[in-house]
Amino acid sequence: MRESSSTLPEYGIGLIGTGFMGRAHALAFGNANAALDLPARLRLTALADADSARAERCAQAWGFERSHANWQYLIDDAQVQIVAITTPNHLHFPMAMAAIAAGKAVYCEKPLAVSLAQADQMRRSAKVAGVVTQVGYNYQHNPMIGLAREMIDAGELGEIVSFQGEFSEDFMGDAQSPWSWRCEAAHAGGALADLGSHLLAMARYLLGDVEAVCADVNTVHRQRPAQSGSAELRDIAVDDQTHALLRFANGARGTFSSSWLKHGYKNHLCFEISGTKGTLAFDQERLNELRIYRAGAPGRDGFQRLLAGPSLPGYAAFCPAPGHQLGYNELKALEVQALVLSLCGQGRRGPDFEEAWQIERLATAIRLAAEQQRWIALADI
Amino acid sequence: MRESSSTLPEYGIGLIGTGFMGRAHALAFGNANAALDLPARLRLTALADADSARAERCAQAWGFERSHANWQYLIDDAQVQIVAITTPNHLHFPMAMAAIAAGKAVYCEKPLAVSLAQADQMRRSAKVAGVVTQVGYNYQHNPMIGLAREMIDAGELGEIVSFQGEFSEDFMGDAQSPWSWRCEAAHAGGALADLGSHLLAMARYLLGDVEAVCADVNTVHRQRPAQSGSAELRDIAVDDQTHALLRFANGARGTFSSSWLKHGYKNHLCFEISGTKGTLAFDQERLNELRIYRAGAPGRDGFQRLLAGPSLPGYAAFCPAPGHQLGYNELKALEVQALVLSLCGQGRRGPDFEEAWQIERLATAIRLAAEQQRWIALADI
Amino acid sequence: MRESSSTLPEYGIGLIGTGFMGRAHALAFGNANAALDLPARLRLTALADADSARAERCAQAWGFERSHANWQYLIDDAQVQIVAITTPNHLHFPMAMAAIAAGKAVYCEKPLAVSLAQADQMRRSAKVAGVVTQVGYNYQHNPMIGLAREMIDAGELGEIVSFQGEFSEDFMGDAQSPWSWRCEAAHAGGALADLGSHLLAMARYLLGDVEAVCADVNTVHRQRPAQSGSAELRDIAVDDQTHALLRFANGARGTFSSSWLKHGYKNHLCFEISGTKGTLAFDQERLNELRIYRAGAPGRDGFQRLLAGPSLPGYAAFCPAPGHQLGYNELKALEVQALVLSLCGQGRRGPDFEEAWQIERLATAIRLAAEQQRWIALADI
Amino acid sequence: MRESSSTLPEYGIGLIGTGFMGRAHALAFGNANAALDLPARLRLTALADADSARAERCAQAWGFERSHANWQYLIDDAQVQIVAITTPNHLHFPMAMAAIAAGKAVYCEKPLAVSLAQADQMRRSAKVAGVVTQVGYNYQHNPMIGLAREMIDAGELGEIVSFQGEFSEDFMGDAQSPWSWRCEAAHAGGALADLGSHLLAMARYLLGDVEAVCADVNTVHRQRPAQSGSAELRDIAVDDQTHALLRFANGARGTFSSSWLKHGYKNHLCFEISGTKGTLAFDQERLNELRIYRAGAPGRDGFQRLLAGPSLPGYAAFCPAPGHQLGYNELKALEVQALVLSLCGQGRRGPDFEEAWQIERLATAIRLAAEQQRWIALADI
Repeated sequence: MRESSSTLPEYGIGLIGTGFMGRAHALAFGNANAALDLPARLRLTALADADSARAERCAQAWGFERSHANWQYLIDDAQVQIVAITTPNHLHFPMAMAAIAAGKAVYCEKPLAVSLAQADQMRRSAKVAGVVTQVGYNYQHNPMIGLAREMIDAGELGEIVSFQGEFSEDFMGDAQSPWSWRCEAAHAGGALADLGSHLLAMARYLLGDVEAVCADVNTVHRQRPAQSGSAELRDIAVDDQTHALLRFANGARGTFSSSWLKHGYKNHLCFEISGTKGTLAFDQERLNELRIYRAGAPGRDGFQRLLAGPSLPGYAAFCPAPGHQLGYNELKALEVQALVLSLCGQGRRGPDFEEAWQIERLATAIRLAAEQQRWIALADI
Repeated sequence: MRESSSTLPEYGIGLIGTGFMGRAHALAFGNANAALDLPARLRLTALADADSARAERCAQAWGFERSHANWQYLIDDAQVQIVAITTPNHLHFPMAMAAIAAGKAVYCEKPLAVSLAQADQMRRSAKVAGVVTQVGYNYQHNPMIGLAREMIDAGELGEIVSFQGEFSEDFMGDAQSPWSWRCEAAHAGGALADLGSHLLAMARYLLGDVEAVCADVNTVHRQRPAQSGSAELRDIAVDDQTHALLRFANGARGTFSSSWLKHGYKNHLCFEISGTKGTLAFDQERLNELRIYRAGAPGRDGFQRLLAGPSLPGYAAFCPAPGHQLGYNELKALEVQALVLSLCGQGRRGPDFEEAWQIERLATAIRLAAEQQRWIALADI
Repeated sequence: MRESSSTLPEYGIGLIGTGFMGRAHALAFGNANAALDLPARLRLTALADADSARAERCAQAWGFERSHANWQYLIDDAQVQIVAITTPNHLHFPMAMAAIAAGKAVYCEKPLAVSLAQADQMRRSAKVAGVVTQVGYNYQHNPMIGLAREMIDAGELGEIVSFQGEFSEDFMGDAQSPWSWRCEAAHAGGALADLGSHLLAMARYLLGDVEAVCADVNTVHRQRPAQSGSAELRDIAVDDQTHALLRFANGARGTFSSSWLKHGYKNHLCFEISGTKGTLAFDQERLNELRIYRAGAPGRDGFQRLLAGPSLPGYAAFCPAPGHQLGYNELKALEVQALVLSLCGQGRRGPDFEEAWQIERLATAIRLAAEQQRWIALADI
Repeated sequence: MRESSSTLPEYGIGLIGTGFMGRAHALAFGNANAALDLPARLRLTALADADSARAERCAQAWGFERSHANWQYLIDDAQVQIVAITTPNHLHFPMAMAAIAAGKAVYCEKPLAVSLAQADQMRRSAKVAGVVTQVGYNYQHNPMIGLAREMIDAGELGEIVSFQGEFSEDFMGDAQSPWSWRCEAAHAGGALADLGSHLLAMARYLLGDVEAVCADVNTVHRQRPAQSGSAELRDIAVDDQTHALLRFANGARGTFSSSWLKHGYKNHLCFEISGTKGTLAFDQERLNELRIYRAGAPGRDGFQRLLAGPSLPGYAAFCPAPGHQLGYNELKALEVQALVLSLCGQGRRGPDFEEAWQIERLATAIRLAAEQQRWIALADI
């Protein structure tokens, strides 16, 4: 075996879950290793899935060294330093708590937990244990979002005045789309938790704290087939769509919508942020673009479409020239990079458990405001 | 003089006001006569402006037979059957009431009045007097809006589920944009009255009654120069932006925004209406287009851009082929057509004083909800 | 009758033709009078149509003082100073020549004539007679096109390097779209004459002379029904689509396409002009917009969408604020303004017979290049 | 070591070159292994670069088992079955010929060679040797392009009538952009070879053979700095932009443009293909979208924007839902999949040396047509 010229530290990854997000993580680790200038090497140490045959098959396909049917073994594995959790939402809590107890870094998919109390316990435990944590609000790792943040922070838009945000998809648009665990509140289901939380994360990332909310929660299809094509119906209690008013600590005001039955939209996490000097607009369905307007001479002003390009380091790592375009999976690789930077003490960009708890708190305030039909101050949550 | 072969009735127009909207009316009467197949002829009888020289100059330029400095003379003019009011908002009430008293049809610019009480009195008086009235919510006379209404009524979108609407401009975006009467509540100033009322009119036209609202009203620049470039500052109390949640009687829920300082937008009356079968989207900045999505086969669905064309009668009157495009002034001509049809007893499309009062009522509910920081039921207004 | 305070000269219009373009002219004269600050008044003196009843009916509807069945009478009418010709193409020549002979100004729809020889005779006669002429290439009167020209002339794009232009519609896209006079070469039919000539006019307006062309002319449907739904077929010889390469005298190179069977396009006169410093792009289907790119800092550059607004005088005459949008008919009114300015000796903007002959010459070169399958220098036409 | 449950064959990759395309290949092999359901496993066997330290460093970073400074060693490596060539264009020939001589499959970046004669020799040698070859025209592996091809083949557009294609970028837009090997004809430089060849590949992939061409080749900046910022100038002979007319064997006609100095465009490989029933439009700058128009009822027709989604297998492999978006690097992974399918005898989708030679032949015809200022039939090349 050749001698490694590299003196980089190495982190062993233990990945729990082999569904779509499991594979997305596997791709992201590989791409981060190959394309990003990481201060450490990632080693695909172990993969866990309750179905042991599937675990082993995926481990081989994705390049993991070993597989486990029992996720606790993976957490206990001495060669695993990072536990990546991609299982259904209700399992985040036990797995993350076990990983924290074992002193491992935790990289958990969103939403962090199925209740605010759980989330609170998780962030406290992580803090006490001093482990690095990160939650998969991947959209904010988009270099174009980084650019938006930079513009806002540099005052290019002036004082921020308004936020209009929406995250709509239509995968539950058909009344015959069947029940799934996403339809259970106990699994953090519903459009607000599933989609809206991404938008809340984004709003906080770009504009900071929200102080008060008012909201309206709505279940359009109150029954859905128990299974695809089934005549049996199950009652649905979670929201199909949620609308809210937001008041930010910085004075900005705005609207928030999340829906999983707005026909025509597939990944429409979009927002407009406007200030005293300009406006910027983004839509995740065109993730390599940002539209910016700067107040200027009448008749010579207008929205400008910026295309992602190599002046943004996260883009340059993957594409040599503008217009080539990053894909969804590369946002995950950039998320992995943020995690590794945190682990190596080189800054912190990804949302950790503390921030994920703040996001849950905000979602909880929205739910409460809708329930009680009144404005809720975040300070009261 | 040639003998007229026409047996059409003739209506004499008396127009009050020579500002931008005055001219827009004058153009609209001319274009309606020449291009639209009206059941009556419009005669440009009299033009009134307090500045008599200006009144006469404009009368000649725009083809009116005579001019008056005193608007009451115009209303009393026996040859005037339609009184068109394009003066600042606080004058709508006395002029309209005088016209109603004289038994004339009234065509009044929006907003109808500077208070809900005034509006209420105007609609009651018009009803008692039995005169035809119309208010200048011109955007709904766009044939593409007519098509949207037709699609909704025909159930092409299924049951309506959501409404996201915004009317933003940026003409007050600069903190140095000076005070004007539009900054006075007593003149029905502020972004909600000036712009938002158009969007409320549109929402009601397309989706019907709103049952409850919650809202947030915000003045960003609390002082503005008394005049352009002046060092003297005046306090501003009206809203620069208003955000609201809407609940429609048909069950749809949604968001509402109006702003006159959202940089980059010039006439951004836009909305998305989504139902159980599809979604449609419109933006006044591209008034000849409508985007429609119909739920379909995965991978073969997608938003479709419809271009206005001669299959829509209001368009065909002005342009022989799709893609030629109507302009803003032709929407006013179509508004005039709606008025003439009402006068001739051939249907009623334009919003009358009754409907304009409903719009004011809704705006009032929004203001109250913001003031009292709570949901307001329209039934309580 | 009131005394006119105006000392403006007055021009009597004689309009020949009552089809769509006839009405567009009538609307344009009215709108020009009412909205544009003309150095003269236009009087709607006479309207001619071979069908005398129709002539009279339209004259009344459109506000003309009298009507004629014989167009020669209209030309001979002493109160007519401007003869406007909106008849089928083959009639342009005799009518214009008669008007020139009578010393009248001529405002003729495009294309100027049905042969280059005719066009040549017309421009020579007009020159000898010293009459003002103008041809209806209305799209260049769009204020956004004026802005484009201004940007190019001011060097904002640097040295011009390339032109990509296309004028496509789809009204002949269906193989069952029947024969019409537009399918006859003797009537200046075919996509190149009907649509392409507008694009050639635009290219010349913006970039000046073309020096050489190479081209490909193509008839896709070589037979069409004699009438709608008819089983009888007529042979078609004119082009359904034409593609060409252009070399401009200024060194720019480019492509040209015109088609009347390109599905999806309704009025797609579009072009991109690129220089050593930037690029601009326009599409007539969104006539109030211009996209401009200025070479700038990598990552902060991008195409900017300009919206027509009142900083452009031709726009300000009709709309008080950006985003309101001009329509097709207002471009005709601006064309009328250009004519009146020419008549009053205040500049010359509209293409006259001389320029229209140059456009025909260029179209002829394209046809010849296609026929002979070789490059043709304009100097040889 | 665990026992592999897999019975898949394994192919050893030998990659030559460590520049941007080298890394793109490395990422693509990894992503193809992890995400695509390949009938074989790819093994990253060896990496070659003349700079041995760089070769070893990249080998470790990208996961290759060993490195070589001498590419011939890599070709001779018994464990290498696929030789991937990502070096500058003039090296494609000797490397590919050596790989063919060694009986290895060859995966070569575009353009295939620096002369048509070389390309001809390469395709003949590959044929005689019976080795599998593939050339990196990666854009056609986009699932949306696959969908476009499927639509065309299924007759959804009817008979194809026209093609308008353009590949523009602006990386040489600045006159001060320095000379590089891309400016040398002997290295297959110039906009036509560098960019245009991608568009020719696409045109052939979608519409088949071109029969005749006419063209115009243009060098705008005839001298460029020898190096960035240098005062020394070098003469440039290759094209900055090329425009052409194309006649396809299927009867379609069209235009072609390629430029590397068209400001504002970063990866603007775009085309419109129109037939007797509809039109489709694509722009590589939005690679996850396809616009389609189907002739339909007037007023209810319009271009529809399709978004890539999991109904397309190549997309589903990477993203679970529409709107998530593939990136450039995933197109390369799909290209690798095509190569593996060819190797396993399961169909042939990627362009092989034979097809790449056809593309070179077409580019050569375009160059000749420009040189000789006449139409050139492909049959004469």
